[in-house]
Amino acid sequence: MNSMIAQVSDVPAVTDVSAEIAQTLLTTNNVWMMLCTAMVFIMHLGFAGVETGFGQAKNTVNILFKNTITPLIGLLTYALVGFFLMYPGFETPGWFAFDSAGWNMFWFSPADADVSADYASGGYTYWTDFLFQAMFAATAATIVSGAIAERVKISAYLVFTLIFVGLVYPLIGSWQWGGGTLKAMGFYDFAGSTLVHSVGGWGALAGVILVGPRIGKYIDGKAISKPGASIPLAVIGTFLLWFGWFGFNGGSVLSADPALVSSVLVITCIGATAGGLGGFFAAYFAFKRLDLGMLLNGILAGLVGITAGADVFTPASGILIGFISGILVVLSAVFLDKLKLDDVVGAVSVHLTCGIWGTLAVGIFSTNPEHSFITQLIGVAICGATAFFAAFAIFYTLKITVGIRVSEEHERSGLDSHEHGIRGYTIVFDE
Amino acid sequence: MNSMIAQVSDVPAVTDVSAEIAQTLLTTNNVWMMLCTAMVFIMHLGFAGVETGFGQAKNTVNILFKNTITPLIGLLTYALVGFFLMYPGFETPGWFAFDSAGWNMFWFSPADADVSADYASGGYTYWTDFLFQAMFAATAATIVSGAIAERVKISAYLVFTLIFVGLVYPLIGSWQWGGGTLKAMGFYDFAGSTLVHSVGGWGALAGVILVGPRIGKYIDGKAISKPGASIPLAVIGTFLLWFGWFGFNGGSVLSADPALVSSVLVITCIGATAGGLGGFFAAYFAFKRLDLGMLLNGILAGLVGITAGADVFTPASGILIGFISGILVVLSAVFLDKLKLDDVVGAVSVHLTCGIWGTLAVGIFSTNPEHSFITQLIGVAICGATAFFAAFAIFYTLKITVGIRVSEEHERSGLDSHEHGIRGYTIVFDE
Amino acid sequence: MNSMIAQVSDVPAVTDVSAEIAQTLLTTNNVWMMLCTAMVFIMHLGFAGVETGFGQAKNTVNILFKNTITPLIGLLTYALVGFFLMYPGFETPGWFAFDSAGWNMFWFSPADADVSADYASGGYTYWTDFLFQAMFAATAATIVSGAIAERVKISAYLVFTLIFVGLVYPLIGSWQWGGGTLKAMGFYDFAGSTLVHSVGGWGALAGVILVGPRIGKYIDGKAISKPGASIPLAVIGTFLLWFGWFGFNGGSVLSADPALVSSVLVITCIGATAGGLGGFFAAYFAFKRLDLGMLLNGILAGLVGITAGADVFTPASGILIGFISGILVVLSAVFLDKLKLDDVVGAVSVHLTCGIWGTLAVGIFSTNPEHSFITQLIGVAICGATAFFAAFAIFYTLKITVGIRVSEEHERSGLDSHEHGIRGYTIVFDE
Repeated sequence: MNSMIAQVSDVPAVTDVSAEIAQTLLTTNNVWMMLCTAMVFIMHLGFAGVETGFGQAKNTVNILFKNTITPLIGLLTYALVGFFLMYPGFETPGWFAFDSAGWNMFWFSPADADVSADYASGGYTYWTDFLFQAMFAATAATIVSGAIAERVKISAYLVFTLIFVGLVYPLIGSWQWGGGTLKAMGFYDFAGSTLVHSVGGWGALAGVILVGPRIGKYIDGKAISKPGASIPLAVIGTFLLWFGWFGFNGGSVLSADPALVSSVLVITCIGATAGGLGGFFAAYFAFKRLDLGMLLNGILAGLVGITAGADVFTPASGILIGFISGILVVLSAVFLDKLKLDDVVGAVSVHLTCGIWGTLAVGIFSTNPEHSFITQLIGVAICGATAFFAAFAIFYTLKITVGIRVSEEHERSGLDSHEHGIRGYTIVFDE
Repeated sequence: MNSMIAQVSDVPAVTDVSAEIAQTLLTTNNVWMMLCTAMVFIMHLGFAGVETGFGQAKNTVNILFKNTITPLIGLLTYALVGFFLMYPGFETPGWFAFDSAGWNMFWFSPADADVSADYASGGYTYWTDFLFQAMFAATAATIVSGAIAERVKISAYLVFTLIFVGLVYPLIGSWQWGGGTLKAMGFYDFAGSTLVHSVGGWGALAGVILVGPRIGKYIDGKAISKPGASIPLAVIGTFLLWFGWFGFNGGSVLSADPALVSSVLVITCIGATAGGLGGFFAAYFAFKRLDLGMLLNGILAGLVGITAGADVFTPASGILIGFISGILVVLSAVFLDKLKLDDVVGAVSVHLTCGIWGTLAVGIFSTNPEHSFITQLIGVAICGATAFFAAFAIFYTLKITVGIRVSEEHERSGLDSHEHGIRGYTIVFDE
Repeated sequence: MNSMIAQVSDVPAVTDVSAEIAQTLLTTNNVWMMLCTAMVFIMHLGFAGVETGFGQAKNTVNILFKNTITPLIGLLTYALVGFFLMYPGFETPGWFAFDSAGWNMFWFSPADADVSADYASGGYTYWTDFLFQAMFAATAATIVSGAIAERVKISAYLVFTLIFVGLVYPLIGSWQWGGGTLKAMGFYDFAGSTLVHSVGGWGALAGVILVGPRIGKYIDGKAISKPGASIPLAVIGTFLLWFGWFGFNGGSVLSADPALVSSVLVITCIGATAGGLGGFFAAYFAFKRLDLGMLLNGILAGLVGITAGADVFTPASGILIGFISGILVVLSAVFLDKLKLDDVVGAVSVHLTCGIWGTLAVGIFSTNPEHSFITQLIGVAICGATAFFAAFAIFYTLKITVGIRVSEEHERSGLDSHEHGIRGYTIVFDE
């Protein structure tokens, strides 16, 4: 019996074993989430590529400057305010709260402090949570920058970004992802067709309306195309955005759950594929040419559209949702031009139009019977009204105070030489 | 005794524990495979960079258009046909089968359906399997696009790609990776020196022969160099392809097995290194200049060469195989020019020549005594004959029907302005 | 009792279970480390982007050639010498040793040999260790290449790189990371502010001094700006370097420890953010313009500065260290210009100045009370003296023998057409 007792006394090791397995699984989950964070980070380079590629060469440095400083502002404001505003741990669903306890823990904990034990059901650590969400946050402002490029005053853009990323985005986000009232209502937005893309898109629309079109964009009611400086950059940007979407949607599972994450990636890529083909066909019928710009924007449209429900769509519905997104992005771009709303890279069409469509599509195609079209519509309306009103108010206040548009002279000769003192390209070969 | 029995009754937890560990290991394996998928995806941007960089500026948009739409076609046809043709689960080795059961499961399962339990020995899920293989599939067509760029009619290229990626590639792949006859023969191709690269390379060769050289490429028997639009893009492309090869070869282990995957990555990088140096030295002796193009193509050649046996070579043999690949790519390029076979980016030399070499090298250098040079040679011949014949038949049929070459006028003035309506670069600074 | 005994006899499985868990955790750790390796690899593309972007168009191919061949030389020399010199497994702390046993094991083991059992406390395999460290090694030389670009003779650069990466870097590294005397002293350098960045920076300084400024750089005591060929490339490079730093710092944890790695990534990104903003503000006050170059260099400066202690800083101190790095990089660049030390991309300011600052900052801000400012200072001095003396000796020997500078004619007309026979950009649209 003694030896047997000895053996049996080893049994409690099973409990330690469970803890060890849980720790190993947390390690795996966290590796995935950190890499998703890195991929979402690279989306900022993707935005820079698309905007610089489709923007004119005389404004290249200005666009790059905005796209480089935007994630810095996004990260900083998210560390100062956004994270603690967006994830307050609502006890009862509400509209506003701030997690002040987390603030001190964040800023003054030693780097290796294990503040993460039992955090987020073992999906990732406290630090990963912050970084992943911070990378998301800055994308909302970046969406705006593309739409109003080439004529917006950079100081106005910076102030707008500070407020929009620091306050508006996390506030709206808290209603759903922070456990607030939208979530309680049953609204569903898996990875942010509405909470990220539409919010950014509404900001872009407000900006486009208030800043006005570029000089010479609309002549006799016709939209004049302003050729992009470098189409290869736009392609680089689009591919990097798609690459980043592996992390954007894949990370929104909030763990490395094998079946769920991998199916989300399949649906995401199918959405991108169908979107690209939808944009290609729509542009072919509309413009009778092989339109690379609409092929690229179609891919992005498909990605935005699929994002609200990448975990609740089947591949068959995913291909339909993506294809419609690709068609919508072309129609939307044509429609905006009719309204003389000048959006340099098509940001409103990609992020707002398809963000709305994707969120509503959850109400139509979701495999989860609890999702309802009406609830989705209400959520879209609440977020849209808030984001548009807030963005409009910020831009309008800036417009009537410091101004939001550069001088006609600066716009004509390009923002680079005036505000930045260098050219985007200096391709000369002689001394 | 009671408490002891209680303890003992905890013991069956060991079984649950094993399942938990297996699930955790699956999660880890699947994370690796998903990230390899993302890295292989980015290879499409790599191909776009190399081809746009080495192609002429007047055809930039056309090249980008093809490189953007190719992975879309690849993903779509693979979801519709390829996946179920390539992995039919042969019961007895054969040459043709289609997994119709998988088709419905794929298209109509809810995204989070765990169709993946006990799939692939716990290496990855069903969904990951699809996406990883789909990313591979499209690369075969992309290889072709680079060789016949700057004069191929885009409609012909799209039809070719549809058939080649949708049917030819998965059919050949099924013979080996799908458990078909080549595998039963003892043929070995770890990650596709033959099944991906040579197959694409044979398609490129058929295309180059039938499309013919660009106007002005060969004058008085001399090859006239046509300067690439942007060498930085070619470098970006090459580095991204190398980066992608971490996933291409690393993912071909089909799990995250630590020793095996990491040694595969070491051999892969050693192959790239030696290939680059081989290309550099060979070009230095042949052309008496520091040839960046051959340094880059040497890296790609080394990667292609090492791919057939990255798991069965030692580092010492890997450096030799890579170095020879680098030399071969230079010799092959010179030889093709002698034959007036105009390959814009050297795709035939990189993917076909070195794909064959690498596959044969398994028969010489493999540490697995079961691998035989003769079997490798037979496999190379079967796949080569099939791929070349199929590609030739497709291109020939297109040539005598809709035509595969743009008009001389379009070729001279560039494909961009005619088919796409925009320029690749518009670097002007004044209004 | 029988059934109970049977159950109890299952208990020893707990031991197997522990081994299985350990293997699973190793698999996860190794996945992280392999992906960090891939991210550090992509830093070489980042360096290529920054240097090609800020360099003049007439030298683009030359810069790309150096940046492409440098990681090849780095990987090869590290496989031949560096790895076995840097990690000799000192039994007693020392200054020089070579692990000759590892050499044979490395070169002649079959790829799938499990030489990695119980290696590195289960953090990663032997092969991963080599590849991760090899990717690090080459960065030290790349830092030099940017500083002395546009006038250094390529043969001299290649010989310098061969010796500097093959011998100097691993020798200095062995003193700390190989378990040598610096480590025994209590010196701390988490991921290489000193061992990688300063070492490269000292090499760059020696090169800049001995090669001399570019023709026409300093006229009447004023630094003349030479416009970079492509600012988008510089931005691409900077973002890819930041992306790579996820692996550079995250991988320096040497496992996927969730709390530690994720906090390191947060501190790293905060350092980059604060550095960028520091560079932006400092340049705004100094030059009265929105200086994109200094915004980018500030980001890199913050990353270099945070690297020595990314695991021992709090976010609050991290923001301070990063911000000071951003200011320092501007001051340092101005100061070097005063001394007529012509550094094309600001490599000395980014990597040397901020490498020193970050290493000393460990002595001030570390949360580990064992770290001391004096010890940090001594370590900085020892490494600095060795690296600078070695680099100076190599460059000086080359200068008085084969020469280290191209002819004035070649420099004026650009290195590309002379040494490489092609242009970096050929953006013409007519036949």
